[in-house]
Amino acid sequence: MRIVAGRVIVSSPGRNYVTLKLETDEGLYGLGDATLNGRELAVAAYLREHVVPMLIGLDPANIEDIWQTLYRGAYWRRGPVTMTAIAAVDVALWDLKGKALGTPVWNLLGGRSRPGITVYTHAHGHSVGEAVEDVERLVSQGFGAVRVQCAVPGIGRMYGVGLPRPSTDDPTLPEVEEDWSTEKYLRFVPELFDAVRSKVGFDVHLLHDAHHRLTPIEAGWLGRRLEDHRLFWLEDPVPAELQESFRLIRQHTTTPLAVGEVFNSVYDCELLIREQLIDYVRASVPHAGGLTHLRKLAALAEPYHVRTGCHGAADLSPVSTAAAAHFGVAVHNAAIQEYQDHPVPARDVFDVGWTVRDGRLDPGDRPGLGVDIDEQAAERLPYERSYLPISRRVDGSVGNY
Amino acid sequence: MRIVAGRVIVSSPGRNYVTLKLETDEGLYGLGDATLNGRELAVAAYLREHVVPMLIGLDPANIEDIWQTLYRGAYWRRGPVTMTAIAAVDVALWDLKGKALGTPVWNLLGGRSRPGITVYTHAHGHSVGEAVEDVERLVSQGFGAVRVQCAVPGIGRMYGVGLPRPSTDDPTLPEVEEDWSTEKYLRFVPELFDAVRSKVGFDVHLLHDAHHRLTPIEAGWLGRRLEDHRLFWLEDPVPAELQESFRLIRQHTTTPLAVGEVFNSVYDCELLIREQLIDYVRASVPHAGGLTHLRKLAALAEPYHVRTGCHGAADLSPVSTAAAAHFGVAVHNAAIQEYQDHPVPARDVFDVGWTVRDGRLDPGDRPGLGVDIDEQAAERLPYERSYLPISRRVDGSVGNY
Amino acid sequence: MRIVAGRVIVSSPGRNYVTLKLETDEGLYGLGDATLNGRELAVAAYLREHVVPMLIGLDPANIEDIWQTLYRGAYWRRGPVTMTAIAAVDVALWDLKGKALGTPVWNLLGGRSRPGITVYTHAHGHSVGEAVEDVERLVSQGFGAVRVQCAVPGIGRMYGVGLPRPSTDDPTLPEVEEDWSTEKYLRFVPELFDAVRSKVGFDVHLLHDAHHRLTPIEAGWLGRRLEDHRLFWLEDPVPAELQESFRLIRQHTTTPLAVGEVFNSVYDCELLIREQLIDYVRASVPHAGGLTHLRKLAALAEPYHVRTGCHGAADLSPVSTAAAAHFGVAVHNAAIQEYQDHPVPARDVFDVGWTVRDGRLDPGDRPGLGVDIDEQAAERLPYERSYLPISRRVDGSVGNY
Amino acid sequence: MRIVAGRVIVSSPGRNYVTLKLETDEGLYGLGDATLNGRELAVAAYLREHVVPMLIGLDPANIEDIWQTLYRGAYWRRGPVTMTAIAAVDVALWDLKGKALGTPVWNLLGGRSRPGITVYTHAHGHSVGEAVEDVERLVSQGFGAVRVQCAVPGIGRMYGVGLPRPSTDDPTLPEVEEDWSTEKYLRFVPELFDAVRSKVGFDVHLLHDAHHRLTPIEAGWLGRRLEDHRLFWLEDPVPAELQESFRLIRQHTTTPLAVGEVFNSVYDCELLIREQLIDYVRASVPHAGGLTHLRKLAALAEPYHVRTGCHGAADLSPVSTAAAAHFGVAVHNAAIQEYQDHPVPARDVFDVGWTVRDGRLDPGDRPGLGVDIDEQAAERLPYERSYLPISRRVDGSVGNY
Repeated sequence: MRIVAGRVIVSSPGRNYVTLKLETDEGLYGLGDATLNGRELAVAAYLREHVVPMLIGLDPANIEDIWQTLYRGAYWRRGPVTMTAIAAVDVALWDLKGKALGTPVWNLLGGRSRPGITVYTHAHGHSVGEAVEDVERLVSQGFGAVRVQCAVPGIGRMYGVGLPRPSTDDPTLPEVEEDWSTEKYLRFVPELFDAVRSKVGFDVHLLHDAHHRLTPIEAGWLGRRLEDHRLFWLEDPVPAELQESFRLIRQHTTTPLAVGEVFNSVYDCELLIREQLIDYVRASVPHAGGLTHLRKLAALAEPYHVRTGCHGAADLSPVSTAAAAHFGVAVHNAAIQEYQDHPVPARDVFDVGWTVRDGRLDPGDRPGLGVDIDEQAAERLPYERSYLPISRRVDGSVGNY
Repeated sequence: MRIVAGRVIVSSPGRNYVTLKLETDEGLYGLGDATLNGRELAVAAYLREHVVPMLIGLDPANIEDIWQTLYRGAYWRRGPVTMTAIAAVDVALWDLKGKALGTPVWNLLGGRSRPGITVYTHAHGHSVGEAVEDVERLVSQGFGAVRVQCAVPGIGRMYGVGLPRPSTDDPTLPEVEEDWSTEKYLRFVPELFDAVRSKVGFDVHLLHDAHHRLTPIEAGWLGRRLEDHRLFWLEDPVPAELQESFRLIRQHTTTPLAVGEVFNSVYDCELLIREQLIDYVRASVPHAGGLTHLRKLAALAEPYHVRTGCHGAADLSPVSTAAAAHFGVAVHNAAIQEYQDHPVPARDVFDVGWTVRDGRLDPGDRPGLGVDIDEQAAERLPYERSYLPISRRVDGSVGNY
Repeated sequence: MRIVAGRVIVSSPGRNYVTLKLETDEGLYGLGDATLNGRELAVAAYLREHVVPMLIGLDPANIEDIWQTLYRGAYWRRGPVTMTAIAAVDVALWDLKGKALGTPVWNLLGGRSRPGITVYTHAHGHSVGEAVEDVERLVSQGFGAVRVQCAVPGIGRMYGVGLPRPSTDDPTLPEVEEDWSTEKYLRFVPELFDAVRSKVGFDVHLLHDAHHRLTPIEAGWLGRRLEDHRLFWLEDPVPAELQESFRLIRQHTTTPLAVGEVFNSVYDCELLIREQLIDYVRASVPHAGGLTHLRKLAALAEPYHVRTGCHGAADLSPVSTAAAAHFGVAVHNAAIQEYQDHPVPARDVFDVGWTVRDGRLDPGDRPGLGVDIDEQAAERLPYERSYLPISRRVDGSVGNY
Repeated sequence: MRIVAGRVIVSSPGRNYVTLKLETDEGLYGLGDATLNGRELAVAAYLREHVVPMLIGLDPANIEDIWQTLYRGAYWRRGPVTMTAIAAVDVALWDLKGKALGTPVWNLLGGRSRPGITVYTHAHGHSVGEAVEDVERLVSQGFGAVRVQCAVPGIGRMYGVGLPRPSTDDPTLPEVEEDWSTEKYLRFVPELFDAVRSKVGFDVHLLHDAHHRLTPIEAGWLGRRLEDHRLFWLEDPVPAELQESFRLIRQHTTTPLAVGEVFNSVYDCELLIREQLIDYVRASVPHAGGLTHLRKLAALAEPYHVRTGCHGAADLSPVSTAAAAHFGVAVHNAAIQEYQDHPVPARDVFDVGWTVRDGRLDPGDRPGLGVDIDEQAAERLPYERSYLPISRRVDGSVGNY
């Protein structure tokens, strides 16, 4: 079999998704998600202009060789754009291999370690009361793990609390959140979890995402204050560019830590894993070099008691949800998978074999990834430029979104 | 002053160069190099589609704020595509600030620490004899520092030795070098430097680039064998994704080490610097986040006896040579700068104020960077897809180019 | 442009200030603060007798080169006298560069990262009640961050609590505080913050200065006791000559730590920063080698999540407040700036462009630093010898003031 | 007994020396050297204006208490100016104590551990031949340890080789050495010691001073190349502001290392000593806080196999030679003492009890330090401004003198 074409499909069924479709001379094709939220067209260009021409004529069976060719042959390695492009190729090749063999990808990854991978989903509220209600709603839907975010009194707009963009905003530019105050946030979060735990008890896993806004010592304080609430994890307490900064957090709290939705490579977390500074690594298939690379990352993590809890918000396409599902049921130290419903129009573009039931994501048994794309439907929903918000601290300087 | 437009100019005057031109409401404009060899159009798309719209209306004076907005606001940080795009904006803003104030960029960076930055250039040969002759030729031209690469008997094609691409190759695809043998290379290099030193003596600095092809223990062996040849540096002995791998090299040899043309951020070399595992960091203005970030990186390196020796081959445009020149004369711990002539047609596209004389690169005294681009000439030389080669080891597996 | 003269102006408009005025052949001049509280005339002599003669005839544009000449050329490096002298030259040169280019210094430093730098000011009381009232008074004036010091029952006289010097004291000699008791202090401070927090709530940042009086294990105890009061920082818990002594404090408390008003160089805090043993470094422009060196120090601190919170009590002249303002709005990891009103007569000697409003210090938009000195007014207020106090412990031995 | 006056005597009997004379109500006085080469008047002002007034009325018996008062009471601690001033007071107090008790200082320090402290002195040459001859001359004079420096072919002017200042130079400004080349130096030094050892054999200790000009890896190379010449020590291979930089040197060579003539405090070498990164610490009585502080430093060094080899060139006055002699015979882990003849006119100003014979410095048995100053002679030889040279590297940037 030979690769004869690679099509990069950019579409916006509610959100922008970039999909790579690798076609072969035998009529089979494979799909990979190449979506990088807010920088979609850079990955699309990386693939179209530079990667796809190199793939034409290659035997899609040799996934590892193609991965190494794209990684080492790029010379300029790593980073989100590069690794998302490589991941899209990698996932498409696994999809192809499954289809060629008439078997689901999880079978190629070593079979099922579990029937489905446990997912967590998102609760939020503009007030503690709303947040609690949202958790209860999700628990009643069968979710056993819920991430809880809540608006903080005194902070106008912030990540994860479900506020729609102000209508006065120019939608073609990034939304700017103006008044981040770490102090207000830190004092509020323990109250939030007091309320949630007292209402929903301890039989549901609760997670929380600090979204890179703290310093290590602040994260240590917060982690300690939350210890008796038994969070499943505290996510992204600080940016992890300097991995050793987690040493300080770790020294002060036994609240489990998760980080890594922005990771692109094993080198982004080697020290975090080797020193057991985290409990869950959140690197995802589409941003961390595909199934090939994420499996190696999981293999590295296994002896250090680190498990995966991959990023999986709706900024990744249903193709990535499929890849996460196959990965999650096959890999033994996969612990949990983030799950968020995609926008409704995405159903018209993507046909998926995976299902979420009873708090678990099941990849299903279709050959390959078990997802398909309707290119005509995709074409009817063209790309709309969109950005992640920008966060400014109360003093006016740019902070971490 | 406000930014009113950002034009991304892609041109191929002998090689592909991507140039960002930021225009203001006062008629002044600034230039930045956005070239990422072999992945040019990904950076161009990153800029055109995602970055430029964010810049319109901003005050170009606030370089740090814009840098942080692009870095933190991207959410998905680091990596070659992202950081090259940010660097292009940053350099264009410094160019603009210099022009707005009527002064060269080096003056804004703290004045001149030296009249010009020492450069090294490239000698190569298909045989030891040719390599020696090439060194002598360059020394006679006034260069006091020369990097020496030579074809290794038994290896058909390899990096840096000046072989033209085989005419049988498809020029729209990457060249593949087929038979890399570390053992052949290791045995040959000491002979090469025996010959060069015996001919040119010790009054010229000699450098050598292992181009990521060794393991740490092999690099330790080679470094020790070369010690009495007093190399100025041994470059890129191993890939540096795992920074601590340099501990092993360092433990075995006092040959000075340089690495980092692929670095994009201070986080790519924090441990290398802090543990003094290298002597020269080769991060460059256009690939490591611009003047703003590279200055911080140099400041980090200063207490650790690490100096800069920035990448500066002809894969970077004359705009980057200008930025390197301003950086190199201003920053105290800048030690040396790579220099390679640009292809002749680049002279028609770029007008430059910098000069190379007596082995030194001088930025000159024009306001800003002192470079300009002829957009019409650029348009006449459109982009031609091109790749860096791919290297395969003698066993057939993909290695590091 | 050439430096033609350097005048060292010593004046006492309420406190002693030493100002360096560097004059050029083009009539422009630059100002730098050379004040070292209690050792003023040593710096004045260092400048007048040794530094100024070296500067005559130099081009003031080459700030980095002059800095290195004074630092390395001194042979005997570092320390408060040397580095204050170098800082005065450095700041005067930045002032000159700004004036020469007709632009404020913050523009040369990369533009504004924020409209103004948040300041904290000083509250104190002879009793808890007075201290609380003082905090409330300052909050009502718009300060959002207040350092709180209070007399400790059983300790007669101590740092920072606003007691006037006993009238029986010889004012030409250092005041001696007689009966420092760490135990009394440690038991009192938590009570103080119980009272302040219960009165002013959590919407104001509270800081506290232990002023070098504790051992690391005592500081660990105090930091932990104060954790739920969410101090913005605990300052100078122990003397930091042995940087690693902060490891012990850090291991026991998540109360943020600040130290460094006595630092003169990056080498005074390299380990503190690299190991993230502190959260804020308090090195100041005039005592840590000027803008040139403090920017490098900030660049070193940035990857380690350490931000600046520079010393800025009224022992530094209004020229230093200006430098701090330019630094504070330009440098991204500047977090906060100490601010204390200068004595009233200082207004007659110094004309300043900076303002403090709504808890923020704004450097303004005048060229250079935006400050001037009235030499005749300065002359009318001659130097009066003055010392910082000396602290003796309750057992009679000398302690740390 | 009470201190009633402190006179600061600045004189230039061939070189500038600053002498503190503390006078008591009982007529006894003590002398201390306050000379800081090239920055003399800053120390003089520090003493006259700030320190002496604090001493009046104190009991000179309480040396430790006065030391702590000056150190901690200064608030701004450490650094060459401050610590030289404190040292001058400290040494004068020890001199006084000895005189008051009618006994030499060495007796107060614990008696003699040896009859005299071994000294090393300086040989130099403009050529290898001259250097060898100079060593032979000194050996014939009875010196058993000689530091050897030699002009390096291709370097015009450099440290320690005995070239008189060019007559074209302005003597009121620092001499600038223009063309330091580390490479030329490194290649030359092994040749120099080949020649010296082959001529004088191994029965004389040879020392060499790299005078801060190398990087750690260069020093490692040089140390290894010199190993079989059995240097007594390689001095000041790199600047030691970052103490851990010696780890790298230490890892590569067993040539003994000495550093520290610029140290002012135990904190400048705590890690160097604790990690046994050096063999000899060169901190000196007058620049490292006096006998009180240097004894503590020696005590710290003792368990780590580090011995003292104090700085003692003619930039320190004969008062300091006396202090070094008393220290050297009394302190068990004192290994060697630098010795250089003072300029001839110094004999008219200083009357000394110490002697150098058979390669040893003997403090003699006079009470106190056994030195006196002729103030009238001193007055006849007034201060002449003078500087240490400034070193520029071959690329024009400022290096380390």
